[in-house]
Formats: sequence, structure tokens, C-alpha cells
Amino acid sequence: MSDLLWQKPGVTVDAEIQAFLAGDDVILDREFFLQDIAASKAHAEGLQRIGILSAEELAGLLRELDALAGDFGSGAFVLDAQYEDGHSAIEARLIERLGDSGRRIHTGRSRNDQILVATRLWLKEKLARALALCIETAGIALSRAQAERDVPLPGYTHLQRAVVSSLGAWWAGWAEAFIDNAARVSETRTWIDANPLGTAAGYGVNLPLDREHTTAALGFARLQVSPLYAQLSRGKFEMAALEAFGSAMLDLRRLAWDLSLFTSAEFGFVALPAQYTTGSSIMPHKRNPDVIELMRASYASVSAARCEIEQLLSLPSGYHRDLQVSKGALFHGFSKGLGALALLPDLLRNLEWRTERMQAALEPSMYATDLAVDLARQGVPFRDAYKQAADPARWQEGDPARSLAERVSPGAAADLRLDELHRRLATIGRRPQPLL
Amino acid sequence: MSDLLWQKPGVTVDAEIQAFLAGDDVILDREFFLQDIAASKAHAEGLQRIGILSAEELAGLLRELDALAGDFGSGAFVLDAQYEDGHSAIEARLIERLGDSGRRIHTGRSRNDQILVATRLWLKEKLARALALCIETAGIALSRAQAERDVPLPGYTHLQRAVVSSLGAWWAGWAEAFIDNAARVSETRTWIDANPLGTAAGYGVNLPLDREHTTAALGFARLQVSPLYAQLSRGKFEMAALEAFGSAMLDLRRLAWDLSLFTSAEFGFVALPAQYTTGSSIMPHKRNPDVIELMRASYASVSAARCEIEQLLSLPSGYHRDLQVSKGALFHGFSKGLGALALLPDLLRNLEWRTERMQAALEPSMYATDLAVDLARQGVPFRDAYKQAADPARWQEGDPARSLAERVSPGAAADLRLDELHRRLATIGRRPQPLL
Amino acid sequence: MSDLLWQKPGVTVDAEIQAFLAGDDVILDREFFLQDIAASKAHAEGLQRIGILSAEELAGLLRELDALAGDFGSGAFVLDAQYEDGHSAIEARLIERLGDSGRRIHTGRSRNDQILVATRLWLKEKLARALALCIETAGIALSRAQAERDVPLPGYTHLQRAVVSSLGAWWAGWAEAFIDNAARVSETRTWIDANPLGTAAGYGVNLPLDREHTTAALGFARLQVSPLYAQLSRGKFEMAALEAFGSAMLDLRRLAWDLSLFTSAEFGFVALPAQYTTGSSIMPHKRNPDVIELMRASYASVSAARCEIEQLLSLPSGYHRDLQVSKGALFHGFSKGLGALALLPDLLRNLEWRTERMQAALEPSMYATDLAVDLARQGVPFRDAYKQAADPARWQEGDPARSLAERVSPGAAADLRLDELHRRLATIGRRPQPLL
Amino acid sequence: MSDLLWQKPGVTVDAEIQAFLAGDDVILDREFFLQDIAASKAHAEGLQRIGILSAEELAGLLRELDALAGDFGSGAFVLDAQYEDGHSAIEARLIERLGDSGRRIHTGRSRNDQILVATRLWLKEKLARALALCIETAGIALSRAQAERDVPLPGYTHLQRAVVSSLGAWWAGWAEAFIDNAARVSETRTWIDANPLGTAAGYGVNLPLDREHTTAALGFARLQVSPLYAQLSRGKFEMAALEAFGSAMLDLRRLAWDLSLFTSAEFGFVALPAQYTTGSSIMPHKRNPDVIELMRASYASVSAARCEIEQLLSLPSGYHRDLQVSKGALFHGFSKGLGALALLPDLLRNLEWRTERMQAALEPSMYATDLAVDLARQGVPFRDAYKQAADPARWQEGDPARSLAERVSPGAAADLRLDELHRRLATIGRRPQPLL
Repeated sequence: MSDLLWQKPGVTVDAEIQAFLAGDDVILDREFFLQDIAASKAHAEGLQRIGILSAEELAGLLRELDALAGDFGSGAFVLDAQYEDGHSAIEARLIERLGDSGRRIHTGRSRNDQILVATRLWLKEKLARALALCIETAGIALSRAQAERDVPLPGYTHLQRAVVSSLGAWWAGWAEAFIDNAARVSETRTWIDANPLGTAAGYGVNLPLDREHTTAALGFARLQVSPLYAQLSRGKFEMAALEAFGSAMLDLRRLAWDLSLFTSAEFGFVALPAQYTTGSSIMPHKRNPDVIELMRASYASVSAARCEIEQLLSLPSGYHRDLQVSKGALFHGFSKGLGALALLPDLLRNLEWRTERMQAALEPSMYATDLAVDLARQGVPFRDAYKQAADPARWQEGDPARSLAERVSPGAAADLRLDELHRRLATIGRRPQPLL
Repeated sequence: MSDLLWQKPGVTVDAEIQAFLAGDDVILDREFFLQDIAASKAHAEGLQRIGILSAEELAGLLRELDALAGDFGSGAFVLDAQYEDGHSAIEARLIERLGDSGRRIHTGRSRNDQILVATRLWLKEKLARALALCIETAGIALSRAQAERDVPLPGYTHLQRAVVSSLGAWWAGWAEAFIDNAARVSETRTWIDANPLGTAAGYGVNLPLDREHTTAALGFARLQVSPLYAQLSRGKFEMAALEAFGSAMLDLRRLAWDLSLFTSAEFGFVALPAQYTTGSSIMPHKRNPDVIELMRASYASVSAARCEIEQLLSLPSGYHRDLQVSKGALFHGFSKGLGALALLPDLLRNLEWRTERMQAALEPSMYATDLAVDLARQGVPFRDAYKQAADPARWQEGDPARSLAERVSPGAAADLRLDELHRRLATIGRRPQPLL
Repeated sequence: MSDLLWQKPGVTVDAEIQAFLAGDDVILDREFFLQDIAASKAHAEGLQRIGILSAEELAGLLRELDALAGDFGSGAFVLDAQYEDGHSAIEARLIERLGDSGRRIHTGRSRNDQILVATRLWLKEKLARALALCIETAGIALSRAQAERDVPLPGYTHLQRAVVSSLGAWWAGWAEAFIDNAARVSETRTWIDANPLGTAAGYGVNLPLDREHTTAALGFARLQVSPLYAQLSRGKFEMAALEAFGSAMLDLRRLAWDLSLFTSAEFGFVALPAQYTTGSSIMPHKRNPDVIELMRASYASVSAARCEIEQLLSLPSGYHRDLQVSKGALFHGFSKGLGALALLPDLLRNLEWRTERMQAALEPSMYATDLAVDLARQGVPFRDAYKQAADPARWQEGDPARSLAERVSPGAAADLRLDELHRRLATIGRRPQPLL
Repeated sequence: MSDLLWQKPGVTVDAEIQAFLAGDDVILDREFFLQDIAASKAHAEGLQRIGILSAEELAGLLRELDALAGDFGSGAFVLDAQYEDGHSAIEARLIERLGDSGRRIHTGRSRNDQILVATRLWLKEKLARALALCIETAGIALSRAQAERDVPLPGYTHLQRAVVSSLGAWWAGWAEAFIDNAARVSETRTWIDANPLGTAAGYGVNLPLDREHTTAALGFARLQVSPLYAQLSRGKFEMAALEAFGSAMLDLRRLAWDLSLFTSAEFGFVALPAQYTTGSSIMPHKRNPDVIELMRASYASVSAARCEIEQLLSLPSGYHRDLQVSKGALFHGFSKGLGALALLPDLLRNLEWRTERMQAALEPSMYATDLAVDLARQGVPFRDAYKQAADPARWQEGDPARSLAERVSPGAAADLRLDELHRRLATIGRRPQPLL
């Protein structure tokens, strides 16, 4: 490893301990490296604005930071174990290329606010990606709800056949789910959209840093004012981001469960395009819906990431090295979760229904509730109507189309209110009015 | 137990199994009972508007529902194990008092949407309470930040003495934390503010229920459109509520940690009023800060409540009885969490600082960072300045007042920006612009 | 509330704060009260053996402790909010009845070791109950495996039809699962079987307490030697108990999932006795398998209990009041979990298979793996055999009985090795050889 | 990617989907690769014993499997994205080198039992490593307890000064903790020590596999009999392993907390060797105990790993692809956890106490409990003695040596019973008597 920023004369460094301390930092910091460079540029601009850097020095730093980003992208620069972490690597590179200008870049900042700002920029990108996927998913669900509005599908409670339902109602449910998920992700993205750069190690510095500039330059919605709170928000904001994302992943898990059942031979409602299936190493005939199962499983990684961070946060205020562990957790949760969510839109587009199997699963008892409500509408007190309709002698083969046509309660099969859902979806694209 | 709503002739009911099924329902349903009654009133009004109930029947139902609420409040009515659950109890009471009108109350609804709507009303109240406590806490922190703005307090990172900080900076950090917490709680309250009543068992009904009326009558911001989604939102909304509340509880945990350290003999920064302490059964001299420790511990109950619900949600769409378990979890999390948070404002008001101990904990090395930044401001490249300032020979007793006065980076001790925080706090009181 | 043990003159006690501190203690302490009394008897005996109590005083204390247990059982004594907790209540009662002898009972002990020992005795009982239920479950599964050994059942992977399997194989799998669960519960019970009484507040006392006597009198396998460790084990032992129990609950969850699918109309493999089902408040025809769903859900409560305790344990050594929260968690997890597990044996005894539906779900492709292996046995390299058997033209209606008869790999349908499982089950009843 | 084992003619494979399905498999499978090879050797031997392979074919396979292990070790063979997973890679390599013999290796096995057996062998190694570290830790703690037996250390409850304690008592507590941890790890290792190889995809095969041979050859203690249970144990055994390991990690977290406090300036009881500290990028004077903080944080990774697996297991019986996610979780938990635990023995060996600071933290009130107990020994009823000793007028500077010398309750400072702890530690080295 290269020299450590903070190394003092005469202090031995133990290789095994340093390896433990570094952990996967240089690997993980690759994930946040471009954000770290972007924030370093803004910080340099801020330093020039308060006279710590000359215009010329700033120009050199910006040029070299861009060059570093380019080299990192091309592979000409590799962030590896010769560096303590990504932050040190940036400073080392600037010093190597620019000498004293490089030695000035860290004026007024700490790795504490450096990692905070890089993580936050990264989180905003990930949430933007999750938002886009939720919106796309909701859009597909709305389209298919319209197109397949009147196709009968058995409705279940307790996995038992309940009443006649429709593909329209099924799709509309997922549409509203992902509209809500999009809204939550969007609001959470706004909630964390606060600039921590310029808070140093949690106590600010004796320099009039131009935090308004860095806030604007990095596209933050507001300043994170308090340095102490900037430190307190580490982990807390990460958890909030995972939780909002987790709402979408929870729904993905339940959707995958539906598809797992529907693709079983016993239900047989869905035919999965071949590319979503894999085979067995021993059973020659198998076509397994592995994609659906891994989608279902991916919630686990988001949950685990949140758990890992949550376990760290029983701490007094101020920075503690424990918080470093949040970095890998965050990366794990979002990479696994987004990997699964990214496949959802195409999967939904490509689902093929086996309507004859769906039709065949309808049975007379599934009209008993309609009957009870009909009787109630005709004046029989519902509790009596219920008892009458509970008599199997009164159940008979019904007409699913008619049952659906009469399901007129708002939101139900005959009144899906897709327009209202379209309206809501359209508002999500717009950035929410910040509350703060 | 009284007759079961759904009981069929000739089917034996096993007492042990029924006890398992009922669980703590009648106890827990007490918690949601007034909300269940309120929603029943709105539902009855809706039924009258579509002709299922006459005006007279409605008047009777409303009168008896109010009477039931009154009797429940006075203890004249006890929700106990003679009922299967609170929902059945309401219907049974109305039938007992009103006969056929009572037998009509359940027309077009299911216990599924009944518990959804009662829970949601309850959650909105709990989040309103949490919101008010966050706002109160932030207000106190802002006042004390102003009042104790310049009192020196050692600043720590890694629990090691770092730089001179101030009570102002400490309070301002917690103020911003609870402003953010208030904002999150408020937005989450709005996010879940959707009316599920009228979605029945997840598939709507063959009646043109007046859901617009119930939405307005119960004060919901919007309709939860899709019956399928109403079911999907069970647990998901509860988790979101616990997560938003959890942000505040995470900060409470860290604040309690600070106070736990500060009240130790070794730190000695805080004197805790006697009513916040308890004694030992064996050690005569002890005054223990149990309140602080139980505040710190209360996050565990919020986390466990969320965990319990999360574990339930690996399910296909549609209602499953598993979801019943969420009720107890929710109640546990909010009652324990709010119990702790409710004590926070007074605790913060009553904290007494031992400024002489705080002062005594400042030491020369804590000015080294100021020195390094000073050198940098004078033109020494920061990395060189850092090395110079690392020399203990250069550390000397400093003036904390001067150190604080020079900490001018935005948000730091000399520029706390309490006005900005006051401005943000003031906006929270206003209900957020709904995104949906 | 009665006087507090530790109350000092002139110190005001705040009712709201005391209520927060007490929490549900007096309710929860009812759960541990008999254990607390038992341990108090042993402690008194120990005190007499070292001369702190006279024989007469001991006799009085033992008599009154027995009387208290009796009164508690009969309801003549109610542990309620007039006491700070169960520990104080015992001491108060003894003082009330016996005067100075009562004032001597707490010599050399703290509520810290008092709650430790009561909890541990309670945990040992709960684990014994869990153990008995696992053994009973395994026994039933073994019996039914034998009785239904050759009944064909479709075997699934990925919820897709895989190969012909048998009820014998299905039951044997659950048998081995619950044998392992029993073993783990038993070993964990032994692992926690250490006596903490006599460690006081974590530092012992200046008295030669007769801990050997209390260890033997209370039936502990060994002494928990270190007072510091006795405190460290709080929460840790509780987690271990919940984790061991959780293994059984995890299997119960998966078994409930099988039954949830098997009782669906689409699978239709199992007919559930009516007493295990409930009806719907709105759908007259429904018979829902609520018991199975609540069994599946009950893992959530065990998991949440463990989570709640885990969240408490990020603490330095020594007692902290945070640990009090573990009590309610523990009670919640075991009461919910044991409630569900207790219904399992009868449920398994009463399951009725619909063999015609199981038979009808077998299809030609499910013999393809047999074919591939057959070809391999005849000399075709398996990977080539696999390709040949993947050709649907080669699949044909097979004979399930023959397929099962040829499944001769150890443990498979034709060689279930129930004797070996019986042998293992028989060994569990014996207490494990303590490792410590 | 090379051809997929199960690929069928005419089925398109989508690159993005395949990437999602593969996940990190080839990276993770590196971790389990040598175990997979070892199990493949045992499987080949078994096949030869039942006539599927000739002696010559077996010899070739063993030779090539050894060669592959060697090439993997040397880097000549790289497991990368050209393979679907490690299992496929082994088969592909054997086919490439040996033709038809290679095509026979998979006879009678599935990747399902292949990953089970490789994971189990790996887990046994990791638990053996954890066991060794617990034993080593306990041994060091016992040595230092002996050596520093009588050095006074303040004892705390609620982080408040309680009574005089000793380094002997502190070390003995950790010793007993790690003895218990070692016992639990050892018993869990035995509990999972069951051979799943030969259970194929969960239903066995139509071949008389020699599972007794593979059990012995791979060093398993027993056969995992039921193929269905072999699948059910996936995740369950992994959780049990993480939970047992987690006991040690919980204690490590609390130990790290002690050290985090003790190395603060305010406590100042411990001087940490320089190699365990790092500096700050901005604060020149800092020496931070990062190693201790990362040790404390490492519990989070073990907890998250368990959480990730737990989230997967709400499934019916039989294999589901969800379970694949457990692999990365397991690797994460053990690598982070063992990384931290591995540093503990040396850290404990190297701790330097600042006895003058420890001495200075003793104060008169800390003798009040001794006084109360003394009075009780002299005949004053304890509750009265307690009140007398609560009077600050009676507190005076005490003699810590005498206080410790009189702390004679078994396990306390004057009677640490290190011999008993030594005896227990010695028994752990011996493999526990298997219960099953």
C-alpha cells in the first residue's frame, strides 16, 4: 500500500490489521468513485471561490479530476489495494500530477464528508433508477389492464377460490402498487437530497466554505445544515433509501409468488417465455421458472442490506468507523434489488396467459357472494342473505362476464378507474414539491 | 364464544383451535375499536346513499354505533373473548339492538376491508402523534441551541477527543435530525392516507358503493382504488409507517447513547434530574439513568414490529390469515416507541449541563486541526500544514471561545443557521402537498 | 405503587416516568413468578446454610413462599401495578408476613441475578415443551411414513412437477427434520442449563454464598461461574433459545406452506378436517385453512422476538436497563410459537389425503429422469442419456409403483431407512451428554 | 458462456437474463470449489463401487479432479463467467479431458446435492476455524485473569460506578463467554455434520448409490437420510451455523464496546498498541481505535447474512432457486466475522492497562454495597442495612484490595474458579458426543 495520509513517523503498521481495516474498500469505492470525483470538483471550485486555490490551480485540478474519471472509465487507472481507499487515491493522483495544488484539495474537508457526499450522489442515482423502473412497470400494468380488462381470472383469498375476478383487476392492482412505490421512492429521494459536503469531520472548519456553491453545483435540493447531523444521517438515510426501494421489492416478491403459482402445472394460468426458464442438471424434462424465483428472492438482499446498516447504528453521535460497513451493504442491496427489478418490465410485457385454464378454474361456488349481495340489494338483510347463499343447493354454473360486469363498486372489475391511476402515474414523473 | 358469523350447520368447532385462531384479537381489537366504529358509521352512510338502508335505519345505526363507542369508553361494554373479534362484536351488538338494520351493516364489506380501514385510521393517528413529538423535540433543541450557543463542549469522533465544539452545535444537530424525522413521518402519513373501505375481500362487490363519500367522511386524502392493491398494501403500509417512525427512534437511540455516556462519572457532562433515575435493589448508593436506557432500548421494539410484519409478507397476492399477526406487531411497535418518544421533550427541557466538566475535557491537541486549517489559509498546502500541525510540540492550551468563533463554515459553531432550521420546522406543520 | 425498594428520602418520583419504567413488568412478571418463587426458596436455603438465616426463619420463608405461589395460582394474590415488579412483590409480601425474615431474603442477591435465574428456569421449561412437541411430531411423521409408504405423490422442484415421489418420502423428510429440531432444542437447553443465582449485580458479594446448593436445588446442570458472564449471557442465552426453537418453527412454516398449496383447489391433495378451517364474513361458500396460515405466520413472532433482543445487545459489559425489554420479547416469541407448534401433532394425525388427485397429477415427463438414469446404468454416459431422455417422444405414461420401487438410493422412496430415523428419535429423549 | 448443461435445441437464451441468473455464482463458487472437487471424488468412488464406473475410469477422474484442484490453486484454471457455475465447470473440464468418463460423473447426482455437500464441507471448516479462535481467546483470557487477578478495576452497571471489581473478574467473564461460545460452535458443527450427497434433486435416484462410502470418505459423522430433508436443511443449517458463530460475535461486540470506552480519554483504562489505531485525513493529532470499531461492527455482517437467508425460507418443501442467494450471504457473514474474530487473540494479548487511571476511578460510594452486606452478615436485616448504607455520611475511602479479598461468593473476585473454567475449556477440544 502507498503511504497512508495520516501515517506518523515511527509508527509501525501491521499488514494483517491494515488488510482488515481496508476491507473491500478499494473495490467498493470503485462503485462510488465517479461521484467522489464529481464532489471533489465542486469542492475545488468552492475552495477557489474563498481564495484557497487560484483560478489556475482550480483549472488544473478540474482537468486532472476529469482525466482521472476518464482513466477510471477506460481502465487506464485501476483503484486497487495499493490505495487505502478511493478518497486517498484521488488525493494521491492529484499530488502526483499537480504537486502543491493536489496537496490543497483536502483543505476544509474530511474523508467523513467526502464519503457522505459521494454516497448521497450515488443513492440519488440508484433511487432515480428505481423510480424509472417503478414508473415503467406501472405503465405496462396499466396498458395490460386496459387490454385484458374483461378476461376472467379466478380470485383467491387464503389460496382458496373466492370469486370471479379479471385480468383487468389483477393488472390494476399491480399498477397502483407500483405507482405508490414510485411516489415513495421519489419522495425519499427528495428527502435525502441534502448536501453534506463542507461539514468536515462533523464539526465544520475554520473556513467560510462556499457550501451554497457546492450544493448548487452538485444538484442538491438543499443544504444539510448541521455537521453533527450530517454524521447522524449516515446510515439513517441509507436505511430510508433501502426502505423506500424495499416497498417496490416487497411487491415484486408478491408478484413473483403469483407467477410462481400461476406457472405451476396445477394452476397453469401463465406460460413463461422460454428465456425466463432454465433446465435441471439431472432431470431432462424440466423447464424451471428460475428468473421468477430469483426475483422473489431478491427482496432478501435488500432486507439484509438494511439489517446490516441497522445493526451498526446503536452508537453515540459523531463518526465511528463502524459506519464504514454500511458501504458494502448498500451496494449489495441496490445491486441485487435493481438487477431483479430491471427484468420486471419485459417479463410483464411478455407474460402469456392461458385463458382456457383460467376459465376452467371457475366454479359455481364462486358466485355465492354475488348471490348474497344480490339478495341484500333486493332487501334481504345481508346476514340472512349470506345464510341463504351458503346453501350449496343454490350454487350453479354462472356467467363470468356477467359477474364481472356487475362488479361495480369503485375500483372493482366493472369500474377499474384506470384513468385515475393514469393521472397519478403522470404526476410522479414530476419531482415532488420538497417539504423541507 | 358467541356464534361465529360464518358458522355452518353441523360443523364442529374445536375450542383449542378457536383459541389459537382468535389469538389476542379481542384484546388487540380494543386498540382499533373506535376506528372500527367510525368506519362503520361512514359505511352505513354510504349504504344509505345507495339505497341499501333507509334514512331511519341509518339513524338507528349511527345512534347505536355512537352508543357503543360511549359504552366502550365508559367500560359498560367490554370487548372480550365472548366475541371472535372486534368486527363481529360490532355487528352482534347492532343486531342485538336493531335487528334487521344490524343484519344489513355488513352489506358490501368484508372484515378484510374493515380491518384495513380501522388500522389505517389508527396509523394516521399514531403518525400524527409521532409528528407532533418530533416537532416539539426539534423546537426545544432549537431553543436550547440558541440559548447555549457558545458553551464549549468537546467534540468526538471514534469516542476520541477531536475538536472543540459547542452545545449550540450539539443541539442544532438534533434539531435538524428531528425536523427531517418530522418531514418523513408527515410524508409517510400522506402516502398511506388512502381509503381502503369498499374494497371488500379484495375483489369489490356487485354494488355501486359510494366510496367517495366514505373517503371524505373519514378524512382520507384519496381513494385506494384497486381492491387487489388494498390487500397488497396490508403490511406494506404498516412497514412504511414503522420505518418512518423508526427514523425518529434511531435518532432517539443515538441521543440516549450520548446521554448515557454524558451521565457517566467519567464524562460527567450531564446531571440528570432525579425523577429520571432509579435505584438498585442491592447497591445502596446507585442512581441509575434507567429512563435513558429504556429510551435507547425502545428502538428494539419498533424494529421487532417491523421484522414481524416483514416476515409475513412472502405471500402471493390476495388475503391470507397470516396478515392478522401484523396487528399485534403494529400495536407493540407504536406503543413502546411512542411511550419513549413522549418522554423526550421534557427530558431535553430538563437536562442540566455541568459546564465545568465539559471545559475540563478540552485539551491542547484539540486545536491541532484549527492550526492546520489556519496554515492552509495562509498558503501552506493542506497536506503539509497537516504534517506540521501533527507535531505535539505545536499543541498548546487554546481558547475555546476563539476556536468556536472562527468555526465559520456554514452550519458550524459560528454559523449555526438556526433561522434556516426554524424555517424548515415551520413548514412541517403544514400538511405536505400530496404527490398522488 | 407501593414504596420502591430503593427510594430515597426527598426524591420525587414522577408517575408518568415510573409508568414508562415499569412498562408491562408486573404483567410479564406473572409469567416468571413461580420460577422467581422457586429460586427465592433455593436462595433462602442457601442463606440459611451460611448462617444468614436461622432454621426457623428459613422455615417461615419457605412456608410463605409456598403460600404465595398458592395464592398466585388461586388468584388470591394478584401481581399488579401496585408493585414495581414481581421481585419487589415477593420481598414486600415476605416482609408483610414475616417482618425481619422478609427483610433478609434479598441478602446477597440483586434483582439482576433474580431475573436471570427466573428467566432461565422458565426458558428450560419452554424448551422442554418445544422438545416434547418436536419428538411427538417426528413420531407421528414416522408412523405415517410407514403406513403410507408406497402412496404416490408428485415430487416438485421449483413448484414444477419433477419426479414421482411418495407419501413415505414426504413424511420421512418431516420426521428427520423434527428429529434434528429436537436434538438442537435439547442441546441448547443443556447449553443454557447454568445457574446464575448468586452472581448479584454482576460482581458477586462479600458472602460465601452456597451456589452449589442452589445449583443442585434448582436442578441446574452446572454453575454459571462468572458474575460478569452471567450478565453477558442475558439476551445471548435468550437468543440461542429462540434460535433453536426457530429451527422447528422454520420447518413448521415450510410444512404449512405445503399444506396451504395442497389444500388449494388446484392441487387438491389434502382435505382438511372442518375444525381447522373458518369461514368468511362476506363469502358464504368459503372454508379457509386459517389454522395452517397462522401456523405459517407464527415463525414471524419467533423471529421478531429474536430481533427485539438482538437490537438490545450492542452494549458494553455489565447490566443495563435496556435488557429489561428482552422479557416481553421472549414471552411473545415462545407463547406464539408454542401455540402454533402445539397444534401440529393433531393436525398431522388428522390429515386426509386425496390420493386420486395425487395420482392424477402424475404425468409422463416425470419418468424422464428414471429413464436417463436407467440408460446410464446400462452404460450410456449420463450426459448423453440425459439428452436422449429429454426428447418428449420418449416420455410415456409410467407406472408410479415401479418408479418408486426402483428408487433405491439410500433414503429414497424404496429405502426410506425409517429404522435409522427411529433409532435417532429414541436417543433424543435421553438428555444429551453435557459438553461443558 | 459455454454450453449450458441443460440447454435444449431451439431455445434462445437471453444474455441479460442469464447474467441475472448466474449472479456472482462463478465468483462465489470459487469459495466452495475445492469442497466441490473433494465431493466429486467421493461421488466418483461411490459410482465405481456400484459399477457405473470402471476402476480405470475412476482413476482417470480422480487424477483429473486432483489436477483441477491444483490448477485452481495455482491460477492455471480460472473459474469465471465462461461457466454457468462451479459445478458445470467441473463437469466440463472432466469431459474435455476424459470424454465419456466425464460424461458419467453426474450419474445419480444433481447440482442440488452437489451444492449442499460442498457448502456443508465448507461450513464445517469455517466452524472449525471459529471454534479454534474461541478456544484461543478463552485461553488468553484465562491466562490474563490469573496474571492480573488482583488488579482493581471499577465495576459498572448502567455505565455508573457500582463496586470495586478486578481485572481477574473481567477476564474471567470473557473466558467463560468464549468457552460457552466454543461449546456452541462445536455442537452446531456436529449437528450439521450429516452427508447430503446422494439425495439428488430431493427425491433420490433409481441407483443403489453407496452413500455410506461417501459419508465416510468425506468425514461426515452421519448420513442425512431423507432427500426431502436434505433440501429442507438448505438455509436452515446455514442459519444455525451463523447463529452459533453469532454468539461469539455478540460477545466480541460487547468486548469491543468495553474497549471503545476504555480507550476514550474519559475512561483511559486501556492503551491500545499503535498498530490497532489509524489517523484522520483532516485532524492531525488523532489516533483512532478503528480496529476495535470494525470488530464491533462485524457482528452486523453476521446478522445480515442470517437475515438474508431467513428471508428466503418462506417456501414450500423442495428445491427453489431462491435458495441460491444463501450462498453469497453465507460467504459474506463468515468472511467478515472470521476476519474480525481472527484479530481478537492478538489484540487481547497486547492490551496494556493503565492501572493508575483504573485506581483513580474508584470512589467511596463504591464500598456502600460491601458495607450493607457486612451489616447483614452481622445480623441487620438486609433491607435495613441497605438503608443505613445508603447514607453518604457512611461512605469513605476504602481499600480496594480488601474489598476484592472479601468478595468470596463463588465466581467473584476472591474466588474466580479459574480451575473450573480451565477444565471446561479442556473438554471443548474433544469432539462432542453426537446426540444423533
